[in-house]
Parts: sequence; C-alpha cells; structure tokens
Amino acid sequence: MRTVYLNGAYLPEDQANISVFDRGFMFADSIYEVTAVLDGKLVDYQRHRGRLRRSLAALGLPFGLDDAQLLQVHRDLIQRNQLGEGLVYLQVSRGAADRNFLFPAAGTPPTVVLYTQAKAIIDSPLAQRGLVLISLPDLRWGRSDIKTTQLLYACMAKEQARAQGADDAWLVRDGCVTEGSSNNAFIVTANGSVVTRPLSTALLPGTTRDALLALVQAEGLRLEERAFTVEEALAASEAFISSSSSFIYPVVRLDGQPIGHGTPGPLAQRLRALYIEHAYASLG
Amino acid sequence: MRTVYLNGAYLPEDQANISVFDRGFMFADSIYEVTAVLDGKLVDYQRHRGRLRRSLAALGLPFGLDDAQLLQVHRDLIQRNQLGEGLVYLQVSRGAADRNFLFPAAGTPPTVVLYTQAKAIIDSPLAQRGLVLISLPDLRWGRSDIKTTQLLYACMAKEQARAQGADDAWLVRDGCVTEGSSNNAFIVTANGSVVTRPLSTALLPGTTRDALLALVQAEGLRLEERAFTVEEALAASEAFISSSSSFIYPVVRLDGQPIGHGTPGPLAQRLRALYIEHAYASLG
Repeated sequence: MRTVYLNGAYLPEDQANISVFDRGFMFADSIYEVTAVLDGKLVDYQRHRGRLRRSLAALGLPFGLDDAQLLQVHRDLIQRNQLGEGLVYLQVSRGAADRNFLFPAAGTPPTVVLYTQAKAIIDSPLAQRGLVLISLPDLRWGRSDIKTTQLLYACMAKEQARAQGADDAWLVRDGCVTEGSSNNAFIVTANGSVVTRPLSTALLPGTTRDALLALVQAEGLRLEERAFTVEEALAASEAFISSSSSFIYPVVRLDGQPIGHGTPGPLAQRLRALYIEHAYASLG
Repeated sequence: MRTVYLNGAYLPEDQANISVFDRGFMFADSIYEVTAVLDGKLVDYQRHRGRLRRSLAALGLPFGLDDAQLLQVHRDLIQRNQLGEGLVYLQVSRGAADRNFLFPAAGTPPTVVLYTQAKAIIDSPLAQRGLVLISLPDLRWGRSDIKTTQLLYACMAKEQARAQGADDAWLVRDGCVTEGSSNNAFIVTANGSVVTRPLSTALLPGTTRDALLALVQAEGLRLEERAFTVEEALAASEAFISSSSSFIYPVVRLDGQPIGHGTPGPLAQRLRALYIEHAYASLG
C-alpha cells in the first residue's frame, strides 16, 4: 500500500482522507502538478516548482511549504514508496470551510496532498506504436493556462476517444488545435519545421514543451510557434505530443486518417530520444 | 454540530471524510444540487430531482439511490439538523479510484454527500436592498447547462465582485449576459417585458427560473426569451436574478450605474412575492 502525504502527515493511502467541505471537492478550487521520476529521482523539478508557484499565484492560493520542504516531501515519498520510475502527483486546494463561493477567511489552511504512481515512462508501448487521436471541440474554460483540477472535460474527451477506439483527443477552438486533453500538440511540416501553438490563456505552459523547445532550437531545427488547424495536422509529415508523464509520443492517426506514413515519424523519435537524454541530465 | 450524509451513513460533520483519490477532488468529475427549505420542508423538490437526474445522465454518473430513498435522506437531514429555513446541498462524484482521466471500472461506487445549511431566505436583507453587480467575461466551460462542481470561475467572479464592493457578477459572452455567477439573469424593458436568455449549453436551467417563467405567463406579463446585452441591462427599467437559495433578488446597480431608479423595482418585488407564494405551495 502506498504512502500519501497529506497536510504534514505520511499516511497509508486508505487513510488519506479530506473533508467533504474541502473546496477542491466542492468548487474545484484547487491546482495540481505532476513530476516524472526516473531512477528514483525527479525530472526537471525546477520547471515544475516554477509552474506550481505560478498556479498558486494566479489563484491567490495559500501554500505552507517552502521550496526545501516541498522538495523533501517529494523525495520522502519516492523513498517510502520505493518508486523507481513513474510520477509524483501534487494537489493544493484552498482548504475546508462551510460552503460559500467566496474565499474563506485568511488563515484557513490549504489542503496539500502528494502521492506517487508507478509508470513505465522510458519503455512505453505507446511511444513505440504512436498515438491514435480524434479531434473534439475545446469546451474548456478560458484559463486553461492555469493547472487547475477543473479536468472534467479532459476526462470526457479521453472517454470519447476510448469509445471511438482512439488513445486521446486534440482539442479545437476557432478552427485551430489548442492542445491535447492533457498534453501539448506539435506537427512537423513538409519542410521540416516544428510547429506548436504559442502560449496564451488557451493552453497549459507545459514543462516538457518548454524543455523541448530549447532542445529543438539547440538542434538547429526550424521552430514555428503558431496555431495550426486540424487540416494542416492531417497534411503534416509528422505529429507528436509532449507531457510530463509521457515525455514525447508520436501521433500516427488523427480522425481516422494517417499522419505522414501512419507510423512514428523520425523527428518525433529523435526528439523523444533527445528529451530522454535531457530528462536524465536533469534528475535531482 | 451538523450531521452529514455520506454514502449511506449519517456522520458528525467533522467525521464526514472522503478519499484524496475521489474524482470529485482530483478531476471535478462531480455534480451537485441545492434545494431550498422553508418550514422544515423542501421547496419545489420535483424540479431539483429532475435536474439531478439530467446532470447524472449528461455525465454518465452512477447513482445508487432511488427516488424514495433520496427524498428520505433529504428529510432525515432536515430533521436531524432541525433545519427550519435554509437549504439541502447534494453532491455526487464518480467515486474514488487511482488517478486516471478515464472513468474507473463499472461498479466503482459513486460518492454521495448531502448536508444542510441554515439561511434566512424569506427575510433577506439583500431582497430588501437589491444587488449591486459588476459584469465580467464569461470564461466558464462550454457546458454550463450541466450543474457540475467546476465552480472555480464562479468563485473567482464573486471574489472580484467583493473586491470592487459589489455583491455578485453577471457573466458576458459575445456581448450578451449568459447568467449570474450562480443565478439566472433577468431584465424588464421600458414596455414592461420580462427578458431572460433562452436555455442552451451556455447557462444553467435554473429550477427557480423555470417556475418563475410559469408565474410570469400565468400573470399575463410579456415574456421574451432572448439574449440581452449589458447596455440593454443598463437601460432597463428593472433587473433581477433568480436562484434556488435566494429566490428572486432585485438588481439595483450594474458596473457602477443605477438600473431604473437604482432601487428594487416593483415588478421584481411582485415576482418575488409570487415566487414565495409558489414556494410555500410546493413544499414537500
């Protein structure tokens, strides 16, 4: 049984309970972060810490742990759960208070939860096979740049994909792909440019996206940060996604049509290899 | 201390706990309902039951209680908490499971929570004084017709209103008011028509809105179900909101400008009185 960190205590997972009055439960007044783990160490932790601070600030969420304490909780959980490869999940809500949309009194302690999940990240069957995607309208709220737990539509999108025999969905707003249901979206054009949507309130500033763009530029590849349509994706020579817990996955089909040759593209595979190298170099 | 209903048990509120793996907490994969209570009895309960069933169906959420059992839980809580006037809050999530966007295995029990809150509904100072509102962009997701707990933006909107010395906010999409942060929006035109936005995926099908529209028509008042702009609201002779736990509140100011004479309008007050009559007649 896993150990869960909850508000200062390390608990068996079946004893990690929160109040039904928690604002994370009642209002989705809550943010989260997911950091990959390789060889029992954290991947690109500084980027996750930075995004966590950004999410907390965007919502004015209180948070009691300083940087050293938070890092220690991550490391303690990895050790207690003997996690070699997988992820550490972190969630912070505005705490428990009698139900009222208005934020509770200053001093109300936030709820802080962390736990681990084992996952094969490096030897991933999906990285070998490539993802089969569908496109769906992006019905999410207007601040998808904040990593909140308002994830119902992402759940619904993945369920719709599953119902259609696909792995996941790309979300489309005003004709252009915003991002995947829990990952950033990329295509490679016929002339070899890597295209991904620029950051805005419409998509999550992915930590893997951020590291990957630096790698793309260091490799001297052409990068275009601009929105692209589903039609452009279907005509692309390759497509792929990035996420903290998947790294890079090639995309081989979209809406029933093959992308490129319908097999994982060479650039996607090369970037996955480069990102894995980066991930190991970033361990901390 | 209140008694809370949680998954078949009646518990003291400080023992009503759910797992940190509850999908309501992790994904906002959860819906809710709020039913007013007057004289220890439920207001317009059939409409709330109907909307609950609609929400459950829209998300494919399982729910173990039949109509008779659910009504009994409502009544038990009112009795145990000796509630005269206020509300019964109900929330259903897709239950607890290890974190995965995909819905858990069939048979995973949902989490069902109900509790009461005391509130003065009839003798309400806000009904006397009227609401001061601001307008804000409607940044919510595209299925605001489903009563989910993705309520973070509603919380943020009410906080922004409070920061500006206002009571609440009306949300604006494509130039037109969709609804309030937790209520439906109405204006009265110079020629005496009651105007409110028609139902769509952009707004909640309010139970009070529904009952009120029947009363408006029974009174022989002119009703226009159409979208209206903020400018039209500012030029209206009256404005008001409807919600299950407030009934009808006049709106007296919007974005710093008075509506009509800047005092509760006669039609809003008449409709509030009519709705209160309806509410007492509906008790069950």
